[in-house]
Amino acid sequence: MDFEYNSKTLEHLEMLREFMDEYIYPNEERYFEQVDAGNRWATVPLMEELKAIAKDRGLWNLFLPHSDRGAGFTNLEYAPLAEQMGRVNWSSEVFNCSAPDTGNMEVLDRFGTEAQKEAWLTDLLDGKIRSAFAMTEPRVASSDATNMEATGVLDGEEWVLNGRKWYISGAGHEDCKVLIFMCLTNPENSAHQQHSQFLVPADTKGIEYTRPMQVFGFDDAPFGHMEIDFNDVRIPKENILLGPGRGFEIAQGRLGPGRIHHCMRAVGQAERAVESMCQRGLDREAFGKPIVDLGANTQLIAQSRIDINMVRLLTLMAADKMDRHGNKVARSEIAQIKVIAPRVASEIIDRAMQMHGAMGLSQDTWLAKAYGVNRVRRLADGPDEVHLNTIAKTELRPYRKAKEASKQG
Amino acid sequence: MDFEYNSKTLEHLEMLREFMDEYIYPNEERYFEQVDAGNRWATVPLMEELKAIAKDRGLWNLFLPHSDRGAGFTNLEYAPLAEQMGRVNWSSEVFNCSAPDTGNMEVLDRFGTEAQKEAWLTDLLDGKIRSAFAMTEPRVASSDATNMEATGVLDGEEWVLNGRKWYISGAGHEDCKVLIFMCLTNPENSAHQQHSQFLVPADTKGIEYTRPMQVFGFDDAPFGHMEIDFNDVRIPKENILLGPGRGFEIAQGRLGPGRIHHCMRAVGQAERAVESMCQRGLDREAFGKPIVDLGANTQLIAQSRIDINMVRLLTLMAADKMDRHGNKVARSEIAQIKVIAPRVASEIIDRAMQMHGAMGLSQDTWLAKAYGVNRVRRLADGPDEVHLNTIAKTELRPYRKAKEASKQG
Amino acid sequence: MDFEYNSKTLEHLEMLREFMDEYIYPNEERYFEQVDAGNRWATVPLMEELKAIAKDRGLWNLFLPHSDRGAGFTNLEYAPLAEQMGRVNWSSEVFNCSAPDTGNMEVLDRFGTEAQKEAWLTDLLDGKIRSAFAMTEPRVASSDATNMEATGVLDGEEWVLNGRKWYISGAGHEDCKVLIFMCLTNPENSAHQQHSQFLVPADTKGIEYTRPMQVFGFDDAPFGHMEIDFNDVRIPKENILLGPGRGFEIAQGRLGPGRIHHCMRAVGQAERAVESMCQRGLDREAFGKPIVDLGANTQLIAQSRIDINMVRLLTLMAADKMDRHGNKVARSEIAQIKVIAPRVASEIIDRAMQMHGAMGLSQDTWLAKAYGVNRVRRLADGPDEVHLNTIAKTELRPYRKAKEASKQG
Amino acid sequence: MDFEYNSKTLEHLEMLREFMDEYIYPNEERYFEQVDAGNRWATVPLMEELKAIAKDRGLWNLFLPHSDRGAGFTNLEYAPLAEQMGRVNWSSEVFNCSAPDTGNMEVLDRFGTEAQKEAWLTDLLDGKIRSAFAMTEPRVASSDATNMEATGVLDGEEWVLNGRKWYISGAGHEDCKVLIFMCLTNPENSAHQQHSQFLVPADTKGIEYTRPMQVFGFDDAPFGHMEIDFNDVRIPKENILLGPGRGFEIAQGRLGPGRIHHCMRAVGQAERAVESMCQRGLDREAFGKPIVDLGANTQLIAQSRIDINMVRLLTLMAADKMDRHGNKVARSEIAQIKVIAPRVASEIIDRAMQMHGAMGLSQDTWLAKAYGVNRVRRLADGPDEVHLNTIAKTELRPYRKAKEASKQG
Repeated sequence: MDFEYNSKTLEHLEMLREFMDEYIYPNEERYFEQVDAGNRWATVPLMEELKAIAKDRGLWNLFLPHSDRGAGFTNLEYAPLAEQMGRVNWSSEVFNCSAPDTGNMEVLDRFGTEAQKEAWLTDLLDGKIRSAFAMTEPRVASSDATNMEATGVLDGEEWVLNGRKWYISGAGHEDCKVLIFMCLTNPENSAHQQHSQFLVPADTKGIEYTRPMQVFGFDDAPFGHMEIDFNDVRIPKENILLGPGRGFEIAQGRLGPGRIHHCMRAVGQAERAVESMCQRGLDREAFGKPIVDLGANTQLIAQSRIDINMVRLLTLMAADKMDRHGNKVARSEIAQIKVIAPRVASEIIDRAMQMHGAMGLSQDTWLAKAYGVNRVRRLADGPDEVHLNTIAKTELRPYRKAKEASKQG
Repeated sequence: MDFEYNSKTLEHLEMLREFMDEYIYPNEERYFEQVDAGNRWATVPLMEELKAIAKDRGLWNLFLPHSDRGAGFTNLEYAPLAEQMGRVNWSSEVFNCSAPDTGNMEVLDRFGTEAQKEAWLTDLLDGKIRSAFAMTEPRVASSDATNMEATGVLDGEEWVLNGRKWYISGAGHEDCKVLIFMCLTNPENSAHQQHSQFLVPADTKGIEYTRPMQVFGFDDAPFGHMEIDFNDVRIPKENILLGPGRGFEIAQGRLGPGRIHHCMRAVGQAERAVESMCQRGLDREAFGKPIVDLGANTQLIAQSRIDINMVRLLTLMAADKMDRHGNKVARSEIAQIKVIAPRVASEIIDRAMQMHGAMGLSQDTWLAKAYGVNRVRRLADGPDEVHLNTIAKTELRPYRKAKEASKQG
Repeated sequence: MDFEYNSKTLEHLEMLREFMDEYIYPNEERYFEQVDAGNRWATVPLMEELKAIAKDRGLWNLFLPHSDRGAGFTNLEYAPLAEQMGRVNWSSEVFNCSAPDTGNMEVLDRFGTEAQKEAWLTDLLDGKIRSAFAMTEPRVASSDATNMEATGVLDGEEWVLNGRKWYISGAGHEDCKVLIFMCLTNPENSAHQQHSQFLVPADTKGIEYTRPMQVFGFDDAPFGHMEIDFNDVRIPKENILLGPGRGFEIAQGRLGPGRIHHCMRAVGQAERAVESMCQRGLDREAFGKPIVDLGANTQLIAQSRIDINMVRLLTLMAADKMDRHGNKVARSEIAQIKVIAPRVASEIIDRAMQMHGAMGLSQDTWLAKAYGVNRVRRLADGPDEVHLNTIAKTELRPYRKAKEASKQG
Repeated sequence: MDFEYNSKTLEHLEMLREFMDEYIYPNEERYFEQVDAGNRWATVPLMEELKAIAKDRGLWNLFLPHSDRGAGFTNLEYAPLAEQMGRVNWSSEVFNCSAPDTGNMEVLDRFGTEAQKEAWLTDLLDGKIRSAFAMTEPRVASSDATNMEATGVLDGEEWVLNGRKWYISGAGHEDCKVLIFMCLTNPENSAHQQHSQFLVPADTKGIEYTRPMQVFGFDDAPFGHMEIDFNDVRIPKENILLGPGRGFEIAQGRLGPGRIHHCMRAVGQAERAVESMCQRGLDREAFGKPIVDLGANTQLIAQSRIDINMVRLLTLMAADKMDRHGNKVARSEIAQIKVIAPRVASEIIDRAMQMHGAMGLSQDTWLAKAYGVNRVRRLADGPDEVHLNTIAKTELRPYRKAKEASKQG
């Protein structure tokens, strides 16, 4: 047991910190100015500039554990880097480490055919295109993924896809060229063998991008969370991933690392929120004192420090367990961080907003948007309630078994 | 002691309920469609239609206790009506009962000269124009209002006003014709006699509406929360309210009723959120059950019911105390509801959002916007921390006195 | 609607306050000295002295709404008196207003035969004897009262009672002369018609007081929470209350007022805890300041004030609803206060303990014991979880009905 | 970075688990029976038996990092063992690893003279005697230790000690032979150089054990938390530790490891509480279901798992930091666990109590006592508020420095 990052992590962390200081923080406003100038869904010039620099410095594709296409970090080694990149909502993309592309690249890397890799993975790893993952549906509770209603039917050499998806993050971007679409294909199978995943070119006929869904008034352009109708969308037979009925198998594989990434980004934002509380608390005065000395502000800063440290450690522990024993063994731990990291980040960002007064809710800080991002995380990939259930099941399993054993004994 | 509404309240409550059912809820989408069609800051046709109907039915200017210009309700009698009207963010205006106009009308009614009343109050009471209250400033902690930096200087027959204000609600609307502007005029006086309030026509030269401030990502058009620069804005000498140095005196008077109104609107939204939890909880299924039966959902509904009932009663009690003994005696109670009503409403709306899944954060329900409205209420008119301090001071006063008395004895 | 106590209540409240100041607070230590001197389960001389004085002053049997045996207070009028008496754990008995005697007297008053009244009610109303209510059982979840396993079987002219009960409050006292015993008598009936209640002289053969149950480390002598074994306890046929199978009917009747009383006592203790926080916070110094000015102490005092005011109002509202519409209509409100009053009281007492340092957990203040009392209240008469369920059911009922109606329509 | 215990820890953990299963859990009731039989402050025969066995198995003096008198565990290696031993309140003593003896032995080991070691350390390490640490005083806020009022005055060859101490844990035990007494000796020095620590034989003339202080009604015999008066207690000059004015220096040294131990014991009890929730939740039924499936019970089990995992990791991280960089560098982390571990343990034990119904508050489970133990921990060695302050100071330090630097620049 050892709580210090290894030298590989520390070295890259330092490089990232320098990069953030030099290129990201000073450009936060400029980024949104570019987004808001003209077509809000277009490629942001600043992003392309920064991507080139990051690539040049070797800060590229840092995710992808266990693949020779990645930088060779384990999940545990990568996690602190994800935290660092996550401090600014849009900066992970600079390093080609942003969701849902990371998950999609992992899926292609692990499960894609050579043709599929050639068609999509190379460009994704190069940062030339972006992608999306079309899973959530408006009409059914996504807490229970087996509810999914969109369908895929094989018609000769083509799959015909139908259904409405929403909150499809990243699909708004003009560079988003491929969607991974999940739907019901084998209703005759058992619950977790009924669905399949498909690679769908984003401009396929029959795909209608109906509207960007909002999160607290934010449309998160240029990525967006699109509502998309699939009306008789036809794709070649070979665009299926792995094979019919294997959709959940693929989904399971991507969720573990994805959650580590999201949670560490949440930690990064919580950390930044505490920094902003300290800064603002000392800079602003009321009643003749810096506001940090008023109310319960010092207590809130202290509590936030405790919370962040705990959540970070739990996330790192989950990453370590996943590295050593796989997603399945680490299932409860992954569910634990999925619940606690966004909740804690939301709370801390809320404290920071309160300490910033009206400004904290405005467009003048990153806080309000980050609050939204973390609030979504309490629902995305299943609401907290589902994950708490997973944790409780794991906890109760040995007792249930013992009880049954004693009944039979 | 008696916990049932009187017949006057019940009767108007019933009229309001019917009006809401008939005209407000069925028009919620249409309202925003009209806002988003064309100039987002323009008069909304639907609003004007509904105002005419409400006026016709006698559901007009229901606030204004103790004034023969109002409908003759005490604060206690009016509070349940404010709750009802507050269920939909934009509906209070339909009844000419929306902030900050209500507070401005009260100020004019109580403190305005005949000329001032003629100039502004009549049209406000008629719903022909709208108004704003320019108090909050970006550069100083508004928790301590004596920090206010904007200035007013008498130059011959004119006051010359300078300063930057922000989050000036309602100032975005094209019908907003007058601003009440508060600023430093008498720095030589003691802390609470240094500021004055002025009536400023919204189109006076030197007023620059720099931008709409956002709350999360919402700009709340057509009302808005404007940032406004006052650059050598000149107004006639007689546009001062009451007289130099009396700004805080006027501010105090408006705050009591205003807080009752806001808190009851918060209660109305919390109530509506619980209704939506019940509705959604029964309608949506996952894992073969209505989702209300999953997780801790029933417990959350029950807890919400407890919370709402308590907050409503506390608000009504504060209103009653204010009616009987005045704002000053009811100061702690008013501070109490100012803290607890928006917090509880936010929590309950958050629970409802969680139960609605992604939809709960989207533009497809009223929840996300209402969350923002209630989040702002934790800061507007002073952050929670300031009000908690007021409550604690009141609580500690007798003990401090006794202690000092015993020292001297 | 009116939030001020009526003159009858105010007058008795003042009398009680004077009594508390004159006789109760100055005797708090002496009371426990007398309990701890000699037989801890014996009559406490101080109690008998104070009872005589209270009776003399007309502060006697203030409960019992709607009965000419009581003082003629409605539940709403009595509630503030219960709060006042509840400030000290043992003081309600001084006024013959302590549980479970109050509930038992109500039951006898409403449901007892003349013979039963003569045998027990007269002496109870005179404060000559005490009583207990034997319901809870160790072996079954008392959250579901239909689980109750103790049995009563009619054998000729006698009922034969068997079973183990525990946490039978008041049964430890040497003056406890009668137990109301609830048990299964009619297993052939539907769930709520299977149980009956019996009047059992406390010294009947076959009753074994096995041990006093503790709450944390307190045995609450001289009342106690006894574990009692009933082994073939024989009582005359006519000692049944109302008749076979009517146990739940009787239980329902007693629960409403009892919960109002308990909740108002909880409010009284919470109020006293805040007073102690103010007192202690100003008296004790650390780091050169009164400790009230350290940490979040002022915020906690303010929050406690908000919480108490809300809980008190909710309890009074529940009492009013019960007075006007009966227990059944007020069921949700009664459940609401049952959940929230003990929880809030526990939290506030906990804050007070923290502010008192080690002393707050010790035998030197009333706080630790009161914490235990309120902690028990979260379980007694059903755990919070059961009552939250009742509230949610009430809340969901109209939506369920509408849903069913629309299905059938 | 690595989250798995090393083989040394794992091996001893396994030995401890076996020991607990074989000797501790089966004897929990018997232990208290022996305590309650006869003199409650006397040596418990069972304890002596078990100590002999533990010593025999090499499970003895596992604490004491960096000393050749100990078992050679670092704080990080020892922490999981402390968790295991802490699962039962009285079991750490079985392994001679209980507070305050551990801290006292560490102090003697690090700061004692050879004579002092010979006189006390040998017997303590052998488990032949016990000891106490007399620091807390009833009359001053112990949150600010510089308040301490007890005095030590050198009179020729003797120190004369005076003052009242309370909550002196372990001093009730008949085997407690030595007290470390801290008091004011050098008021002329700066705040943290005014106090000294002395070794005082427990039977020295002038020491009066006035009463056992309680925690929620528990006196925790045979150890106890004694109130002790020191009236002109004379001890030889050489019984001072280190020298005059060095009391805080010594106190600082002991606090770090002591807090790790306490926090890990808290974690152990929280873990056991979750186990009991699972057990009870499946065993007990209500409304036709195991109670684990009612209310929010599964959610509470899941939340408890998250909380425990986080607190454990934070505590281990603090231990690691202390091992690597010393108490001073790890000061914030030590404060963090001091705040969060007892709070979380209390919450989880409270949930377990609720799930056990009345039994959970009774003498029939270990829960109520453990609740008290953890509640005390929120005050012992300084209340939470003081530690939150330490954390906030550490957090704010770089910002304060930068601010001052920029002012001067």
